[in-house]
Amino acid sequence: MKTPLVSCLTILVFLCSIAKGVQSDSNPAPSNVAGSQYPSLDSERRGTFEIKAPEASNVQVDLPQGNYDMQKGEEGIWRVTTPPIEPGFHYYSFRIDGALVFDPGSHAFYGASRHGSGIEIPEPGVDFYDVKDVPHGSLRSQLYFSSVTNSWRHLFVYTPPGYDLNLDQRYPVLYLQHGGGEDETGWVNQGKTDRILDNLIAEKKAVPMLVVIANGNLPRPEGIPFGYSLEGMVPFSEELLENIVPFIDENFRTEAKASQRALAGLSMGGGQSFIVGLANTDTFGSIGAFSTGLFGGIRRSGPFDAEAFVPGFVTQAETFNEKLEIFYLSCGEQDERIEFTQQVVSDFREHGHELAFNSFPGGHEWQVWRKSLRDFAQRIFR
Amino acid sequence: MKTPLVSCLTILVFLCSIAKGVQSDSNPAPSNVAGSQYPSLDSERRGTFEIKAPEASNVQVDLPQGNYDMQKGEEGIWRVTTPPIEPGFHYYSFRIDGALVFDPGSHAFYGASRHGSGIEIPEPGVDFYDVKDVPHGSLRSQLYFSSVTNSWRHLFVYTPPGYDLNLDQRYPVLYLQHGGGEDETGWVNQGKTDRILDNLIAEKKAVPMLVVIANGNLPRPEGIPFGYSLEGMVPFSEELLENIVPFIDENFRTEAKASQRALAGLSMGGGQSFIVGLANTDTFGSIGAFSTGLFGGIRRSGPFDAEAFVPGFVTQAETFNEKLEIFYLSCGEQDERIEFTQQVVSDFREHGHELAFNSFPGGHEWQVWRKSLRDFAQRIFR
Repeated sequence: MKTPLVSCLTILVFLCSIAKGVQSDSNPAPSNVAGSQYPSLDSERRGTFEIKAPEASNVQVDLPQGNYDMQKGEEGIWRVTTPPIEPGFHYYSFRIDGALVFDPGSHAFYGASRHGSGIEIPEPGVDFYDVKDVPHGSLRSQLYFSSVTNSWRHLFVYTPPGYDLNLDQRYPVLYLQHGGGEDETGWVNQGKTDRILDNLIAEKKAVPMLVVIANGNLPRPEGIPFGYSLEGMVPFSEELLENIVPFIDENFRTEAKASQRALAGLSMGGGQSFIVGLANTDTFGSIGAFSTGLFGGIRRSGPFDAEAFVPGFVTQAETFNEKLEIFYLSCGEQDERIEFTQQVVSDFREHGHELAFNSFPGGHEWQVWRKSLRDFAQRIFR
Repeated sequence: MKTPLVSCLTILVFLCSIAKGVQSDSNPAPSNVAGSQYPSLDSERRGTFEIKAPEASNVQVDLPQGNYDMQKGEEGIWRVTTPPIEPGFHYYSFRIDGALVFDPGSHAFYGASRHGSGIEIPEPGVDFYDVKDVPHGSLRSQLYFSSVTNSWRHLFVYTPPGYDLNLDQRYPVLYLQHGGGEDETGWVNQGKTDRILDNLIAEKKAVPMLVVIANGNLPRPEGIPFGYSLEGMVPFSEELLENIVPFIDENFRTEAKASQRALAGLSMGGGQSFIVGLANTDTFGSIGAFSTGLFGGIRRSGPFDAEAFVPGFVTQAETFNEKLEIFYLSCGEQDERIEFTQQVVSDFREHGHELAFNSFPGGHEWQVWRKSLRDFAQRIFR
């Protein structure tokens, strides 16, 4: 027979193990600032968010998947544990008595036209954008002069491992464009382009290449309404063809020919890549459009009129097939754009176009774009 | 005699000019995200801050110079115009019903152990950190492997204009460390190191050099309390001497000798530079400590015991004079550290040390550190 002391100890050990179990299952998110315990994620990807707001009467956390009311606890700290969050990167904010604001616990990311909180949710079994024990390239932050805006503008250039040593080698170049409400930091901080390329190159799944990540936000020409149009695309087209590509060819050891240049982008950048890329197949030999709304959606009714955006696209498919090495579309499987993207893939193929299409689990979000980049980068420059 | 109509018109024009004057005098801060009107600054450097918080009962903006109550206006928008703000870069936050949070209108910066709002206040007549029409260097983001943390760590390397073209040229290197609660992004985003060097080099006021900006946050050895000590400095010292310097010398075209290496830092980084730099004059021929609290202040009473941190410092000043090209201290004139910094400058000179000292208007803040870097960079490698 156990003594009361042993029983008490057994209960104590049991209670401690519960407490420990609950704690050890939940860890700070990888996107937290150093030392910050919240937001935390448990093994089911449930997020616990916390914010101190002693005098507030109503606090929510706003995630892409929904808004969650937080409960006030001791010392004015509000907290909520959400249902499981989809793997990948998500913007979020707090709403404190109606004010949309950002979390002191998280690093900040520029997107959705603000520089605010983001949370990284690891995807089980997915490590292609992790920092691994492989040779690492370099990411250069660089100013160049724009004749379009008459000002210095900023871009990033990823150079692969060995670029500074193999001085006789010249490299192909992928030009990679961000989405609306983002800037050139998107493919770096959210997209993890450098880590994706490091890993692909180490595994010999992609050839060593430069990746140029420029700011695709340019002033709209006067009188041109919001939305995709040939006229609206002129400033971006000029910036890319007359400023960015020449700057890169002059300052980096590139293979300066169409077969060794690709243009791709996500969402708005996908529309830019489609319109400007297909109009300039003498400059770009491969084109990728990830999750673009160009082909339909909210602002357009009726089927996508490819000929209006790319003269000759419907009538001279063979010309494009001859010029293009890779013509690639992708979309998230839960993105509202998936339906009309699949429709144009079918239409384009009916017109005689050779194109690759892939889809990935997820909505209009970075996890889809990371996977699109990984997929596209393996296909080009072969 | 004027007609009543003319009088009315005169008054109308006068009223319009007042209204226009008020509006055109205030502009979005340079640190705002694209399209954001607030915070705004008028010609007297008064800041107007705005945040929508319909249900809040108490909203303040917290600036280094003080906290200001905001007033609720139409549509739940809170607003305040502050007294003039000191030129330079300042962290700030909103306090909404007791919650410390960040402004959707501003870009975010990592500092004070959080990644939150910052505001840039232009200083009249000061343009040494502006983007000018000069050749621009490149800022490389780079991973290296640390034997101290047994993990990949991140640093930036500024390469001057021409680095990629002048392949026979080797360059001196300035190692530049951030302060406490900051990381390696501080000297880039707040410090504008690349622009300062671009401009100095263009004016031939500094020699072309590399600048290495690494993360100086390393785990404290077990049992070592917070604060400066020789034992506490071991991990940083090992990281710098055994990992960072060798990585840079192997991967960049450096002049790998003490006379062509400088070590400098701000606040915590100034303490690191003083202790590790002076203990390693065979590696670093120039040392700069900006605004460091090492010499006194909050956590120490009595005079600074230099000999305890740098054996031989008091007794063998001549050895240091022979080995060091530049030994430099600086501090903000309104920084609480100015008094004991001036005291040690006097003490060190009494011991026989040759050292340069400069001070700049401002407190413990980036405007002082930008000016310290500009000053220090002109003195080294001559």
